[in-house]
This record gives sequence, structure tokens and C-alpha cells, in this order.
Amino acid sequence: MEAGVGGHAPRCRRRGLPSQANQNRKLSAVMADAVLFEFLHMEMVAELWARGPDPGPGGQKTSLSVLESVGFRVGQALGERLPRETLAFREELDALKFLCKDLWVALFQKQIDGLRTNHQGTYVLQDNSFPLLTRMASGLQYLEEAPKFLAFTCGLLRGALITLGLKSLVTASVAALPTCKFQVVIQKS
Amino acid sequence: MEAGVGGHAPRCRRRGLPSQANQNRKLSAVMADAVLFEFLHMEMVAELWARGPDPGPGGQKTSLSVLESVGFRVGQALGERLPRETLAFREELDALKFLCKDLWVALFQKQIDGLRTNHQGTYVLQDNSFPLLTRMASGLQYLEEAPKFLAFTCGLLRGALITLGLKSLVTASVAALPTCKFQVVIQKS
Repeated sequence: MEAGVGGHAPRCRRRGLPSQANQNRKLSAVMADAVLFEFLHMEMVAELWARGPDPGPGGQKTSLSVLESVGFRVGQALGERLPRETLAFREELDALKFLCKDLWVALFQKQIDGLRTNHQGTYVLQDNSFPLLTRMASGLQYLEEAPKFLAFTCGLLRGALITLGLKSLVTASVAALPTCKFQVVIQKS
Repeated sequence: MEAGVGGHAPRCRRRGLPSQANQNRKLSAVMADAVLFEFLHMEMVAELWARGPDPGPGGQKTSLSVLESVGFRVGQALGERLPRETLAFREELDALKFLCKDLWVALFQKQIDGLRTNHQGTYVLQDNSFPLLTRMASGLQYLEEAPKFLAFTCGLLRGALITLGLKSLVTASVAALPTCKFQVVIQKS
């Protein structure tokens, strides 16, 4: 493959970057990982929507289910990287708090805004400015577009909870963009 | 939706986290954004492969093309966030160096290992341990699996280059896992 690519070989130096590159180093902040995750998520949603076998409600349901299952596997993969001692939460509520704080910070560089519970296995996690919704135009007419930007995160929460020993159902709802609520119902077995 | 979820409302506090949560804060490092990007990429590849319309070479080509186009749009989206002054590289080679350093750091927290050019518009970027390949089992029998883990990044490079004013063809090759080379051929117009 290297045929025709010989000649002078300007290797990237790890130290002593030229001034132009030094100036550009601050751009890493612009292209932060969070942005990368958001863009990749957005394009994955767009691609799955474009490839959906059926543009009707049945096809949309399939695409939502695919996004949810991709999220579930990512949540599981993240959860499986946690040290074992983390997995031993004394209380269910501690596991949910962990998602609201640590998981949300890892995903979105901020904690979630509110956690409510009925102390009977139902939890509502509220994000007042959910990052995967903030790039959408706001307005009532866009509300119906919201579910496809929430399905992945529903699955991710469910996947992370499974690795913490909790089987759950996770749904999301939006009343006014970009605020959204994730409802987690723990399944007692 | 909040029916039945009233009662006591333990809000996530932004300060004064309890000791369990403090202990868990270091877990953000475990679930770093880089890992998130890698997991999301891996699951997207798996999903597209599972949904490919045809398991034969034709279907695989379609899936590779889809991954490349998702990468292209993510690369464009990243590039469009760059300050305008960055886009004015004096030389083509400076734009390529920018990808090898800043873009690679933003994506993979490290610079690329080598950049070679024939000074006629062809560049070879070599990564000796490409992060999207390192989770694959190594061994000759897995080499044929490699292209699906490279297509997204080929597209991403092409997308970023377009925003820097350079039209290109980007291909990738692997001789021994997890080393890979991206060949960029700038299209003069």
C-alpha cells in the first residue's frame, strides 16, 4: 500500500509541536468527546430512521426498539467496567443516585436536575435541558420527534441498572422541550 | 406522568454529595467519554451488521458505505464547530497534521503515530494501536472483520477534510492487528 507514498516522511512529533499546531491544541476543547458522542448519537438516529423498513408507526416502533437495544448494550458495557465494589449498593435508591450523578456526568458532563421516588420502586429522573434534545428546534410541533432522541438513553439506563443487579422498565416523556423525564420502574423478581 | 410518584423527593444535590457518591465520583474516569464513544461505535457497527439486507459481499458493501457516510456527517459536524481561522491552513500538509494531532486527540486521547506523504496529494496516516481495533481479538483469522471497524473513521476523516476545504478519498488497510493505515488522496478540482 505504501507504493508511491515514499519520499520525505514528516512524522507527527509528540513534543515540540509547531506554533500553528500549538494554536490549534485548544481546538480539542471545541471537539470535545461529549460533542463527539452527541454527534454520533444524532447520526445513528438519523441513519436508523432513514433505513427503517416502514415509515409508518410500525416501522418507527421497530427503530425505537433498535435504538433502545443499542443503548441497553452500551449501558451494560459501561456497567461491566465498574469496579465490583461499586455494584454492591446497600439500597436501590443509592443505585439510582449513582445514575443521576456519576453516569450522567460521564455522559453529559452534568448531573441530572431532579430525582423523585414513591419509595415503591418507581423513580422519575428529570433533566431540565437534556443534551440530546437541545439541538432540536423547540416548539410544540417538534414534540413528536422527541421519542427517537430518548430511546437510546432509556436503553442505556436499563442496561446500566442490570449490571447493578436491578431489572427495570425505563420510559421517557417530554412535556416541553428540552426538558424530559425518564421513568424507571424496578421489576421485583 | 407523575401520578404515583409523589411523596418524598430526594433531589440530587450539586454540592455536598454523600460519601458513597464521593467514592463513586472517580468512576467517571472508568466510564470516560472515550469509552462511551468506543462502545457506541461498536454497537452501531454490530447493529448495522445485524440489520444488513444481505449477508453476502453486496450487503457488506452497503453496510460499509452506511458507516462511512455516518462518519462523514460526524466529521463534517465536528469540522463545522471549528473557529473560522483554523480553516485557513496555509498548506495542505498543515491540515493533515491537524487531523493527526488535534482530531486524533479529540477522538482517541492520543496523537496518530505516523504521517507520510509523497508531496503529491497522497498521505498515509498510521496508527500502531488503533483504539477501534484493539478490542478485537488479534490473529490473522480476524483480519477480514477489520474493515467494518475502519469505515466510520474513513468517513470521519473525509468529512473533516471537506470542512477544511479539501475533497478527498480515504481508504484504510490493516496488515497486522491492531495497526492500521488510512490513505488520504486529495482530489484536485
